[in-house]
Amino acid sequence: MPAQGTDHVVMGHGSGGKLTARLIEQTILPALKNPILDVLDDQAMLPLDGGRIAFTTDSYVVTPIFFPGGDIGELAVNGTVNDLAMGGAVPKFLSLALILEEGTPLFDLERVVASVRRAADRAGVVVVTGDTKVVPRGSGDGIFVNTAGIGLVPAGVRLSAQRVSPGDAVILSGQIGDHGVAILASREGLELEGEFSSDTAALHDLVASMLAAHSDIHAMRDPTRGGLAASLVEIATRQKLGIEVDERAIPVDDAVRGACEILGLDPLHVANEGKLVAFVPEVGAEAVLAAMRAHPLGRGAVRIGRVVDTHAGTVVLKTPVGGQRVLDLPFGESLPRIC
Amino acid sequence: MPAQGTDHVVMGHGSGGKLTARLIEQTILPALKNPILDVLDDQAMLPLDGGRIAFTTDSYVVTPIFFPGGDIGELAVNGTVNDLAMGGAVPKFLSLALILEEGTPLFDLERVVASVRRAADRAGVVVVTGDTKVVPRGSGDGIFVNTAGIGLVPAGVRLSAQRVSPGDAVILSGQIGDHGVAILASREGLELEGEFSSDTAALHDLVASMLAAHSDIHAMRDPTRGGLAASLVEIATRQKLGIEVDERAIPVDDAVRGACEILGLDPLHVANEGKLVAFVPEVGAEAVLAAMRAHPLGRGAVRIGRVVDTHAGTVVLKTPVGGQRVLDLPFGESLPRIC
Repeated sequence: MPAQGTDHVVMGHGSGGKLTARLIEQTILPALKNPILDVLDDQAMLPLDGGRIAFTTDSYVVTPIFFPGGDIGELAVNGTVNDLAMGGAVPKFLSLALILEEGTPLFDLERVVASVRRAADRAGVVVVTGDTKVVPRGSGDGIFVNTAGIGLVPAGVRLSAQRVSPGDAVILSGQIGDHGVAILASREGLELEGEFSSDTAALHDLVASMLAAHSDIHAMRDPTRGGLAASLVEIATRQKLGIEVDERAIPVDDAVRGACEILGLDPLHVANEGKLVAFVPEVGAEAVLAAMRAHPLGRGAVRIGRVVDTHAGTVVLKTPVGGQRVLDLPFGESLPRIC
Repeated sequence: MPAQGTDHVVMGHGSGGKLTARLIEQTILPALKNPILDVLDDQAMLPLDGGRIAFTTDSYVVTPIFFPGGDIGELAVNGTVNDLAMGGAVPKFLSLALILEEGTPLFDLERVVASVRRAADRAGVVVVTGDTKVVPRGSGDGIFVNTAGIGLVPAGVRLSAQRVSPGDAVILSGQIGDHGVAILASREGLELEGEFSSDTAALHDLVASMLAAHSDIHAMRDPTRGGLAASLVEIATRQKLGIEVDERAIPVDDAVRGACEILGLDPLHVANEGKLVAFVPEVGAEAVLAAMRAHPLGRGAVRIGRVVDTHAGTVVLKTPVGGQRVLDLPFGESLPRIC
């Protein structure tokens, strides 16, 4: 660990790993502390006029901005739609804020904005407000996008990490690692075997199908930056619960697995942009699985494990060779600017 | 005009001047077109569950991030609170998204986040959701901040540029140019006579006093990037109305005026972060003025002109020497990264 990590921003602070968690928990949250923020789900739940509104934001700094399977505009819509969907909200409205670097081709901007529109139409959301800033060459990098999103939470839906309980089935919607490997493969100088494509997709409709099958799903996460490992470890540590996962059950495409081996990456740490992991009471697990498999975005859904009342705060992975290992986060940066 | 302005992003695209308007109207809006966005007020009005919610976003890329009278954190809260307030909304919730450049001192981040909290507490808003991204050295510049905001619009309040009408009094809340000159004066290498301080302030309470005095105010704008000129010209051109302004009535601090002369700037083009301009039916104008002058943030409030049914689309300035000139926007960039 470089000494500067203690007093300057390092790339690892953006990794989704331990340094990110430390930055947020030690530097940002203490200053902003309040009961709504402190829940730390992917979206804030706002009590408004009797109803509930979900509110979320994400900035997108992915490079390159155009990649196999998508681009930064589509990612910025789907990512924010998904953060709303993980709270069971029906996504409604987006803001769009652009930070443009001097010298960026206007044609790139046009492509990105057109892609925002297509993705928004597909997800049934409307971009209702926006902002554009320009920074000098070398003070930005092409196009950075921020979207904030507002969704409506149907009565009776209550999805939160705080509800995850021992006995819950852990269900994954499909194969992992596609987005991160597609981004890495599209970067200059990386020659990888295979055709890779980001899995970027809006998951709200899949979520609606799942809730229709069993309304009392406890929590959902979309395993983006930091991968499936970050989603599982975050819930285990924050909620002080154990999670057991069967590594063999986690679907990974062969080419993605091969690319990860070459790059020295664990697929569990690689970002996804069209997958979710759900914590479902056992009584509803089979119904939710069936609903997912009947949906185009959940065809590959599988049970990968369960929540237990032992080894609190720890995710234990049963390995293919019959052993066990504790699933951990990378300390710092392995995949910069993946989203 | 440099040829690249036609096909690449140039600094002027972020100026708040004509190039900004052209980028938004030609490149961004056509792709995103929808009835809520197309209103183009400082905030979107969302019909939700019978009530109305205001929603807005802004990114802040000001340099330096700490300046006389404020910093980027305070600016990011006040600026977004003000965009909500200009719609008559009571600001409630903010998101906070940070893009950090590798190498930024964590102490700077701590100061900015602490400043966000203080400004939020002062404005009565809560930061309920957030995001943090890191970009490599040279792909960002210290700290960029995006805030999105949600506010509640009281029944009966209907503020929109679309309501501005001939006969409306144009009222300014105080002296202009302070913020922009304070930023410029704090940049390396600029030696200016005088003590300058940003006017950054949250205006929602001033707005509430004004609406209490006369609920049927037609529209408000906070003249930030592009200055008072941009606010007036935008309304005149979009609403196809004439506006007459008495230049002598516009208060400008002597030191600010002197600095503008040295820098070759028109104070009307310089950004403000704690001022508003209101369009008020004549019947309510005196009551609104009195309410403003009784408020700490409106003590310097003055009538500066009126909306007319001649010279549609044009702001005509009566100059101190008895002449007239058409108020226009700068074409491109005079004040980069002012907010």
